[in-house]
Amino acid sequence: MATAVPTDRNGLEVLGLDECMDLLAMVPVGRVAFIAEGAPLIVPVNHAVWHGGVAFRSAPGSKLDAAIMERYVAFEVDGLDREQRVGWSVVVQGVAETIDDPGDVNALDALGMQPWSPHVSNGRWVRIRPDVVSGRRVIPAD
Amino acid sequence: MATAVPTDRNGLEVLGLDECMDLLAMVPVGRVAFIAEGAPLIVPVNHAVWHGGVAFRSAPGSKLDAAIMERYVAFEVDGLDREQRVGWSVVVQGVAETIDDPGDVNALDALGMQPWSPHVSNGRWVRIRPDVVSGRRVIPAD
Repeated sequence: MATAVPTDRNGLEVLGLDECMDLLAMVPVGRVAFIAEGAPLIVPVNHAVWHGGVAFRSAPGSKLDAAIMERYVAFEVDGLDREQRVGWSVVVQGVAETIDDPGDVNALDALGMQPWSPHVSNGRWVRIRPDVVSGRRVIPAD
Repeated sequence: MATAVPTDRNGLEVLGLDECMDLLAMVPVGRVAFIAEGAPLIVPVNHAVWHGGVAFRSAPGSKLDAAIMERYVAFEVDGLDREQRVGWSVVVQGVAETIDDPGDVNALDALGMQPWSPHVSNGRWVRIRPDVVSGRRVIPAD
């Protein structure tokens, strides 16, 4: 008898916290969703898993940088395989905060994380303090 | 002399509307950002370009389905190549609406679009009426 996996009401497999964190660490680029001028917006960023949350650089002068600090945001990573018709998605929801502590900044700099865009390499570090971490995986119908 | 491309204040290339629409049509899966219970959330969906906007199925009973109708949302697609350090992102912002017209529903059904998750195949069709379409591409530093 196959082991049943927990599913939500849409028939998607519910991923546990450990697996969500592993998947977050596995993929180097995610997407931040936030409210800019009253409307939802999505921006892709490079990220690292950092103290149980996620950290990324925020480009100075960007809409992202102007809108997220001390605000509730969502961060998503996914892996989608069109051929195989399988996929998963992990979302972190929480408040975005500037990382000010020089030791933390040095530690993040030392990760050698290459920003997706060279133009954000002078941006400040931001952490999302996780409030909710959730993940789903598509279970093929057949 | 090289032709200069338009860039934003972060040094990213600004994509024109035609190129944004081509990229939206090229990639079968995008992500919807919306407000659910007061907080931003991101959900991946299969989509089609439809009458100058985007259309996708919304799974009945999902947070997405409960939160987006007649609300302002963002829809994003991207293409990121970690090896090449290049990438682009296109965002459509606008109001999400249920597609009720039977002719439109039949036409969308006839596209043969396979939902990423088999569990949304009975979902209603939603269109985002585009208000803002914007696109950016990373220009390598070297």
